[in-house]
Amino acid sequence: MIHAQTLTAVLRTASEAGEFVREGFTRRIIRTGELMTVVLDIEGGPWTEADPYHAHPHEQTCYIVSGEVLFLAEGSRPERLSAGDCFAVPPNVPHSIQLLSQTARLVDNFHPVREDFLK
Amino acid sequence: MIHAQTLTAVLRTASEAGEFVREGFTRRIIRTGELMTVVLDIEGGPWTEADPYHAHPHEQTCYIVSGEVLFLAEGSRPERLSAGDCFAVPPNVPHSIQLLSQTARLVDNFHPVREDFLK
Repeated sequence: MIHAQTLTAVLRTASEAGEFVREGFTRRIIRTGELMTVVLDIEGGPWTEADPYHAHPHEQTCYIVSGEVLFLAEGSRPERLSAGDCFAVPPNVPHSIQLLSQTARLVDNFHPVREDFLK
Repeated sequence: MIHAQTLTAVLRTASEAGEFVREGFTRRIIRTGELMTVVLDIEGGPWTEADPYHAHPHEQTCYIVSGEVLFLAEGSRPERLSAGDCFAVPPNVPHSIQLLSQTARLVDNFHPVREDFLK
């Protein structure tokens, strides 16, 4: 995890060791005080069903760098998203994805930082 | 500009009209209340010099989707960054880029939102 506190900082995902999250999920994190960007690489797709819905008080945006996902959220219709697409999640709105491609890279951004991602 | 206020929202950069910022700069924005993601497409490179330094009280992270840039910041050495690399900028740290490739796509994230980007 790279933390830009008083000076700028850089994360090179090609050379920075990723953190194993769970089977098929690797992440690399760069953050400032109140803003966190998580580069999430997923493999092992396509999935036969979506992840369970989850929610958090953090605001979230996501940019899809590669791959294809079905984005699901309470109160909205499912959206099929691929490279170049984004989604945004207000606080506490339950949401999920289903990986439709073999692999995907998602750039997730959170405010405030996900303290649960820090160890 | 897409604003996810109470429900989630989606931005498809391939079909959403971009906003002309200045010669060679087009942006598309998705935001929640306190978090803004700006997909910035730059063309007309490579540049012979960097943009003037600028600073803002907003925290910033950036993911480079394509292209190559020289990232410059006060107090840090210049960093040559390309697809898959990220940088982070704490509040009020002067910084700039120089486009080294012909085109680039940057995903800039800000907290709080850049009110100066809203019209």
